[in-house]
Amino acid sequence: MLSADALSSTLTAVEFAAVAVFAGSGALAASRKEMDIFGFALLATVTGTGGGTVRDMLLGNLPVFWVKQPAYLVICLVIAALMFFTAHLMSSRYRVLVWLDAIGLALVAVLGAERALATGADPLVAVTMGVITAAFGGIIRDVLSGEPPLLLSRHEIYVTAAMAGAIVFVALTGLGVPRIAAVGAGFVIGFTLRACAIRYGWALPGYKPRPGREPGDIGY
Amino acid sequence: MLSADALSSTLTAVEFAAVAVFAGSGALAASRKEMDIFGFALLATVTGTGGGTVRDMLLGNLPVFWVKQPAYLVICLVIAALMFFTAHLMSSRYRVLVWLDAIGLALVAVLGAERALATGADPLVAVTMGVITAAFGGIIRDVLSGEPPLLLSRHEIYVTAAMAGAIVFVALTGLGVPRIAAVGAGFVIGFTLRACAIRYGWALPGYKPRPGREPGDIGY
Amino acid sequence: MLSADALSSTLTAVEFAAVAVFAGSGALAASRKEMDIFGFALLATVTGTGGGTVRDMLLGNLPVFWVKQPAYLVICLVIAALMFFTAHLMSSRYRVLVWLDAIGLALVAVLGAERALATGADPLVAVTMGVITAAFGGIIRDVLSGEPPLLLSRHEIYVTAAMAGAIVFVALTGLGVPRIAAVGAGFVIGFTLRACAIRYGWALPGYKPRPGREPGDIGY
Repeated sequence: MLSADALSSTLTAVEFAAVAVFAGSGALAASRKEMDIFGFALLATVTGTGGGTVRDMLLGNLPVFWVKQPAYLVICLVIAALMFFTAHLMSSRYRVLVWLDAIGLALVAVLGAERALATGADPLVAVTMGVITAAFGGIIRDVLSGEPPLLLSRHEIYVTAAMAGAIVFVALTGLGVPRIAAVGAGFVIGFTLRACAIRYGWALPGYKPRPGREPGDIGY
Repeated sequence: MLSADALSSTLTAVEFAAVAVFAGSGALAASRKEMDIFGFALLATVTGTGGGTVRDMLLGNLPVFWVKQPAYLVICLVIAALMFFTAHLMSSRYRVLVWLDAIGLALVAVLGAERALATGADPLVAVTMGVITAAFGGIIRDVLSGEPPLLLSRHEIYVTAAMAGAIVFVALTGLGVPRIAAVGAGFVIGFTLRACAIRYGWALPGYKPRPGREPGDIGY
Repeated sequence: MLSADALSSTLTAVEFAAVAVFAGSGALAASRKEMDIFGFALLATVTGTGGGTVRDMLLGNLPVFWVKQPAYLVICLVIAALMFFTAHLMSSRYRVLVWLDAIGLALVAVLGAERALATGADPLVAVTMGVITAAFGGIIRDVLSGEPPLLLSRHEIYVTAAMAGAIVFVALTGLGVPRIAAVGAGFVIGFTLRACAIRYGWALPGYKPRPGREPGDIGY
């Protein structure tokens, strides 16, 4: 089994990765809106840190993580600057945004659940925290950049992927699996589900209006 | 007069009712967007718990109420599942959404004010807390589901109803009325006002542009 | 050098000014949507206090400033009432809104940075706090009133002005300049930059798609 130190530094690495990929998706959203370099910096920072910020506020871990550790801001700013000068090299910025969003979604879902468990929360709360924090990074980006939220791409598996990743992590942790392995498994499941949704159009049945909706129809 | 225990359990029941009806309105919004069942779960949970979450964060009651008491999440998920299978039976889902929103609005306004008073806040702060938390549940739902905010249905009494309910509660409490009675009176006033707005189109005069706005008109 | 008391009362005056001008811009947004007087009150209050509220929640200064000091609410309500009866006298409400927003932006950016430094945060965190809190007041107003965010007026200097003001304040403070002078200098720089953007259309180069974006073009 890994030591507490190794666990802590692995989780820190995961948090950095989550912040970095969401920051990248924020910078790409800024490039699609043709913002200036400080607009890139703001959108990268807010998107990169958004999910973890909401998580820390809900759990009462204040001040939030990036106030305690400014390196998270540095990474957002570096990514914003890199993207400002290189985003035009990508053949499809929207596709890259969607894939970065997918990686970030899976990372943040597991991290949100992990942080909640670490503060003694109930497993159901931990899963919810994972889902909400995974959704919020992208929602903030989409609202700030005036795009229709990715979250609302109806039938596509999005919230579902975050929930699956968080559930796998929480369940494995409950079964006594080492936390790092549980983090890895949760990420793989969450990302794979979302990836299949993007690549193969996997979807759950959406709510569909069914017969019997019209008052006159009732009874048929 | 009621014991502290009876007060506390009554307030808990009111909080459960508020979460449940807002969760129902969130699930209906999800059904209108034809989301999948996990989309229902997310929108029901975020709408159901949104107002109280903002309230707890502003007051510093952290972690927020549903982290301490996961039963609030269970009720949101149950309602999301029920709605996913039954929403099509309603002849007008939007009308039901509007009425659930009205009940939730009145409940959350009083609860927000009550929680603020309980932490020693000023009466003005308590009324503001009631109004803001009542407005936020619906705003989050409407932003997440891409609908124009109900709050903005201009002249219609909406914010006003929340404010009236919160003021009645705070005033009666200040006059020494038992807290449970004040909660009840605040809810009845808030809900009745909003109900009349929905049913009879009650409205306050909106801001109307008046003569003298055009630069050329000034002085006439 | 000024005493701690004088510093504290100057900062309180700056906070009042920031709340007041943002409240005014919120009330103007309400007037443009022809809301009723309670809609004015809500939009003025949420816009006026929004930036500082987000700042206090991120830093863990809870309950937030207006819960501790209800006079901030009184000023929002007074401004909402004044605007409800006088906004029609302005020849261009949108122009006034834009200018109030500019003053508020510069004030909140410096205040956010100052509060962050006061709680022992890193200079980079302080600048970020200034920018985020300056942006949030306006974002909340624009989302609530259904307007396209001012923040997104692409090339125009907006985020940049907030960042410049916060950087000047943090840098001068680091150099040992008395805090009140640093606050003043930061405000002047931030406001001047934004004013030039409004008045003379100053802008930074936005991100522009460049050659090589189309897959077929690569290699040519």
